[in-house]
Amino acid sequence: MHAAQMAEEYPVIDMDSDAIDAARLLAEHRLPGILVVSADGCPQAVLPASQVVLFIVPKYVQDDPSLAGVLPETMCGQVVSRLLGKKVRDVIPERLSQIPAAKADDNIVEVAALMAKFKTPLVAVLDGKKLLGVITSSRLLEVALNN
Amino acid sequence: MHAAQMAEEYPVIDMDSDAIDAARLLAEHRLPGILVVSADGCPQAVLPASQVVLFIVPKYVQDDPSLAGVLPETMCGQVVSRLLGKKVRDVIPERLSQIPAAKADDNIVEVAALMAKFKTPLVAVLDGKKLLGVITSSRLLEVALNN
Repeated sequence: MHAAQMAEEYPVIDMDSDAIDAARLLAEHRLPGILVVSADGCPQAVLPASQVVLFIVPKYVQDDPSLAGVLPETMCGQVVSRLLGKKVRDVIPERLSQIPAAKADDNIVEVAALMAKFKTPLVAVLDGKKLLGVITSSRLLEVALNN
Repeated sequence: MHAAQMAEEYPVIDMDSDAIDAARLLAEHRLPGILVVSADGCPQAVLPASQVVLFIVPKYVQDDPSLAGVLPETMCGQVVSRLLGKKVRDVIPERLSQIPAAKADDNIVEVAALMAKFKTPLVAVLDGKKLLGVITSSRLLEVALNN
């Protein structure tokens, strides 16, 4: 089975959308990550849910997690405010800022190797510049099991 | 909101189950990862879907992804055979072999910091040794947005 047959429809978000809208899509659909596209709809990058979670943890807490325990309740209620004013492009991790994309005729091992290399929860499948769909880790396992 | 209130029911798998059954659960429910428990039901570890994907990529392809393109079709149809004979415990990544667990009264920043530290798609929430449920990255974002 080729990547084109493995690909599924999947939500995308514009690079210049508000980061909070990406968080909303990830939350609503319980996605492991979301495909980021340019204004003309071309796939550009991947934004994992884990990256957005990382972004809402203050730097001083990342450095010393024990500090999180002493944060006042009000501050915990405002974690999402760290996303305000940010665009999707501002929160994409460096390693996924260039789209990990499979070609339509890539085989399952090529797709798996791509996921492993980029440590990405999903890859786009492209026919030239055209987006055919997305393959997530769990979708890839489904295909592997049904082969 | 405390971790206990954020936690949700979530599939678990026994440490000594076949790895292929973990792959099946991940695929069927389209999960980013699965909670691994001991024979007595105590949470032990996390197995991310990405780790199972990594496991089905032969080592020589991980080293040189271009080799995947020249694999014969029959070999691609058998990727899942690499899981045969393996137990769940054999495929858990080192960094998640000790359960990343939140305490019932942890706040949202503590849970987020835990996820960031362990690079895990989910954490267990424990009351002592009792499993209260699981929080995934996307669930955490949902709570953050609704706060």
